[in-house]
Formats: sequence, C-alpha cells, structure tokens
Amino acid sequence: MLSPSVENLVAQLTRLPGIGSRTAQRLAFHLLQAQKEEALALAGAIKEVKERVRFCRDCGNLTEDELCGICLDARRDRTTICVVEQPVDLVSLERTAEYRGLYHVLGGALSPLDGVEPEHLRIDELMHRVQSDGVVEVVLATNPNATGEATASYLASRLRDRVRVTRLASGLPVGGDLEYADEVTLGRALVGRREM
Amino acid sequence: MLSPSVENLVAQLTRLPGIGSRTAQRLAFHLLQAQKEEALALAGAIKEVKERVRFCRDCGNLTEDELCGICLDARRDRTTICVVEQPVDLVSLERTAEYRGLYHVLGGALSPLDGVEPEHLRIDELMHRVQSDGVVEVVLATNPNATGEATASYLASRLRDRVRVTRLASGLPVGGDLEYADEVTLGRALVGRREM
Repeated sequence: MLSPSVENLVAQLTRLPGIGSRTAQRLAFHLLQAQKEEALALAGAIKEVKERVRFCRDCGNLTEDELCGICLDARRDRTTICVVEQPVDLVSLERTAEYRGLYHVLGGALSPLDGVEPEHLRIDELMHRVQSDGVVEVVLATNPNATGEATASYLASRLRDRVRVTRLASGLPVGGDLEYADEVTLGRALVGRREM
Repeated sequence: MLSPSVENLVAQLTRLPGIGSRTAQRLAFHLLQAQKEEALALAGAIKEVKERVRFCRDCGNLTEDELCGICLDARRDRTTICVVEQPVDLVSLERTAEYRGLYHVLGGALSPLDGVEPEHLRIDELMHRVQSDGVVEVVLATNPNATGEATASYLASRLRDRVRVTRLASGLPVGGDLEYADEVTLGRALVGRREM
C-alpha cells in the first residue's frame, strides 16, 4: 500500500543494525516529511563517507588521508600503543582524555568459530610496529567479552617478550550499584582490588 | 577525532527522530563497514523517495502518481471515508484488513498552541469530497490524544449535518492487562461497554 520507492527506503533502513521494521517505517516517514535539503544532506553524507573514508596506513583508524589525525599528531606519545578492535572503541577511549599514546585498530577480535583467525586481523602490522618503532608498552583494550579476552591473551603471548603488555582494568562501573553487578564483574573487582 | 565526513554523517543521522548521538555513531560505523553497494543503496533510496513521492490529489496519501493505489482501486467502497492525521496511520489501518473504504489524510491535527489551525490541514478538501462524492459515512481516526480528539470534535461539528460521522472505539488494548490500563482508557472501556 506504500509506493514502491517508500517500500524500498523502508527495506534499506531495516538493514541497519538495531532498526526494526517499525522504526524503519517511522524514519522513512520522517524523511518523506522532512525538508528536501535535510533528506538529501543525509543521502549525500552516506555517499561521501563511502567515497572519502579509508583506513590509516599505520594504525587502521578511519581517515580521509594516508595517515589519521592521531598518528600525525606530534604531541602523542609514540612509545605506547593501545590496541582496540574497532575505530568506534578508539573514539570511546579518546573521549576519556586519559590516553596520550597511539592506537592500533585490529578490525575485529579472534573468533575461530566465526572463521576469524589471526591472519584476518591487523596483527602482523601490530608486530611490525612494535618491532620497529621504539614502542615500550602495548595496552590491550579489546572488549571484555569472550572473543576480546581471547584476542588479548593471544596478543599478550606474542608480545610479552618484546614489550610491556597491559590490559584495561575490569571492575565495577563507576556510579554503578554493587547490588546489580553481575558475579563475574564483581569477582574481577575483588581480584583486582587496590590499596587505599 | 573522527574524519570530517564521518562527523557530518553522524550529525545528519542525529537529526532523525529517536536517534541519539550514540545510535547515530553506531549507524555511521555500520555504514562505514558495510559493503559500498549497501550504503549507496540507502543513500539512493532516500534521494529517490524525495524525488518521486508526492501526495495523492484526492486523499493526500503518499503516491508516485497523481492518485494513490487506494483511490485508484475500483474495489474500494467509495461511500466511506476514514480520516487520519498522517499517511503512517493509514498504513496501520490497512494492516488490520478490516477497512475497505477510502481515506483522507489531514496532514496533522489541530493544535492552536502550535499554530495549527483548520486552514493548515486538508479540511477544505475533505468537505469538498463529502459534498460531491456520494459519501455516506466519515470515520474519524485521528489519534486518541488531546489534539486528535480536538480535531475529531471539530470535524464532527462540521460534518454531522451532511453524513454519518463515527469515531474509532477507545478501550482496553487486546491482549492487555486490566491491571496495567491507565484510568482514562479503563473509563472509556467502561463507558463503551457492549452487550454480549
């Protein structure tokens, strides 16, 4: 009962993660009623991103040039590399303003069941950087879940002989409630307890 | 720290209803990692919809032609017109498969505080259709909220002399729980109780 082009827009929106058919329909109707400029600005932004954005030659972060802004920034500490799964994780870490080193984006986590083996991630590039660039510490910031932990263990075993290898702390979320913490997180918080 | 084109895409996505900055970022990264064809298909669908879709001359529904599929459908009952606020409401009603008449899309609801007066809605067009087309019943299906009810009352006062005017029933949602119904809905359900 919708026109073919509206049906097509709903179908395309439904392919986005976390967007069900109801939400897709709501978004489609919004775009239909929006100013033409607003809708076309979104279409243009999608197109532009696919044309312009590529991966940083050194760290794998997103960039529109050969190197990303962080790798180019002379004020960053080049002796430390923080390893993340995806560019979005790098964004989260940058937001903390607690880290001044460089990054290395793996492009995922090891997951043999899904066919993701070490050669599918940017691990050789990481080893190369660690060997050649005067790196003294690698911070493993893969996700604190099964595949992220497996990836961290694997990387630690390969890097341990060459550099200091650290892992982000696990524990209670700040502002969280002890009562609602799951037992694994609470256990980690206990094991990782610090002197005060 | 994101590239300018990614920042722009996130900004454009954030303008969509119900999409906050976190979700926009997640969607942007999905589009970045998606196949180029998938991302461009979405961009193309948005563009196409804005170029092709317009309003049905008779009922105000969305269409790619002068008249929409419902107005063109010879099997629809032309003596009944169901009045809705937006095309999306028409879609919901069509999904029930309980209605075989025509529609009239107002384009909103009366809301003097927001500056929406009768002349801003497709009310003259509705009066014209009712006068000229052998219509015997108008079903008012504006939303069961303050502005929708006000619009229904206004339309009823203008239409009552010419045709039968009905309103969608209010009451308990099917499958709902009496315990969780709000008092207004429960009150309506009582007032509108039916013989069994």
